[in-house]
Amino acid sequence: MPVDPSAEIEITAFAWVPDFAKGLVRDLRVRWALEEIGLPYRVRLLHGERPPEYYLEQPFGQVPAYRDPEVQLFESGAILIHLGLKDERLLPTAIEPRMRGIAWLISALNSVEPMFFELINIDIFNKGQAWTEERRPQVLDRIRARLALLAEALGDRDWFEGRFSIGNLMMATVLRNLRHTDLVAEQPRLAAFLERSQQRPAFQRALADQLEVFKQHQPEGAAA
Amino acid sequence: MPVDPSAEIEITAFAWVPDFAKGLVRDLRVRWALEEIGLPYRVRLLHGERPPEYYLEQPFGQVPAYRDPEVQLFESGAILIHLGLKDERLLPTAIEPRMRGIAWLISALNSVEPMFFELINIDIFNKGQAWTEERRPQVLDRIRARLALLAEALGDRDWFEGRFSIGNLMMATVLRNLRHTDLVAEQPRLAAFLERSQQRPAFQRALADQLEVFKQHQPEGAAA
Repeated sequence: MPVDPSAEIEITAFAWVPDFAKGLVRDLRVRWALEEIGLPYRVRLLHGERPPEYYLEQPFGQVPAYRDPEVQLFESGAILIHLGLKDERLLPTAIEPRMRGIAWLISALNSVEPMFFELINIDIFNKGQAWTEERRPQVLDRIRARLALLAEALGDRDWFEGRFSIGNLMMATVLRNLRHTDLVAEQPRLAAFLERSQQRPAFQRALADQLEVFKQHQPEGAAA
Repeated sequence: MPVDPSAEIEITAFAWVPDFAKGLVRDLRVRWALEEIGLPYRVRLLHGERPPEYYLEQPFGQVPAYRDPEVQLFESGAILIHLGLKDERLLPTAIEPRMRGIAWLISALNSVEPMFFELINIDIFNKGQAWTEERRPQVLDRIRARLALLAEALGDRDWFEGRFSIGNLMMATVLRNLRHTDLVAEQPRLAAFLERSQQRPAFQRALADQLEVFKQHQPEGAAA
């Protein structure tokens, strides 16, 4: 099992988060990639408020921050590219499929996830505010149109570009952000892609390890 | 001058866009990078509705799509990484500064730009709708907090990580999306960074070439 307190690779993660975020926090992406290639890593937990010095590692105070003997990094997308460039199980070595794997990762982060951020702001962080009632249907329309194009691009293949990669890994974790809706289920190809992704043993180990931390640090009296 | 109809590298661009988008369309990022390294490119223009076959090149119908003798690519972020991995003027070759340059590019696309998308939806695409009045101050607060952290990360240096790179190029083009506001001016370090970026001759050539296309394809009767 890759989680190993003596490992050279270190990632940061939150000790606990509320239910809506459990299984979505972005260290999951890096845990999953490391599980795919069997690289051990240790986890440094952040409890509550981030200390000021954490911003030197992660400019926005987010998780994960990452370090190995070669690099100190932030942004899950950059960490996945770093791991992908070192292991062809995560990213092909030939230049065209390599760069197209990276293109799908960037698509996930900039052409797909930002629309989901807006929905999550409406459904979770600003739930019940008057403005959300007028805005929500517009955001749903935009997301539906984008997901239809994404399903078309996947086509009948199991994976974007025909093989598993950091691009597919990133897209799957981005689609998971819609789990409180039926939006992915409305696109059977995407629903099958997400299911296929989540059935990978590496994903399941990564998810179990993230959730186990939250269970161990459950505050007294907080909702499970 | 890199624009050359017989060049091997091809990018796509829009023949014309309304004023609010002039100088912001994303082919600017790739034009700028190509100008920095003196690589000639040709431009294939898209007029009005995208034809269905364009989605095979760019899954969401956006610009730019890119091709050279090695790869066909989409997503400006991926194209910049492709160019950066080939030329150290755009990205250092040593692994740590290389990966940190990529980290700033990813930050720009996923931790900074998505908040700006929300403001642009409010100020431009949905201007005047009732919901925007309640939402706008919240979005401004979030952007201000994020820009304060970004200015802190830049510190007193001219460039993120101390030298020009695709990470800096991407961050500058992302900050340009706020040009209809004073938000960047409120952070003098970021304002100086953006000014420094925009004074680069390569940026100025790229911008002039994008704008020239729009001028040539100005529809009769449309606002200039």
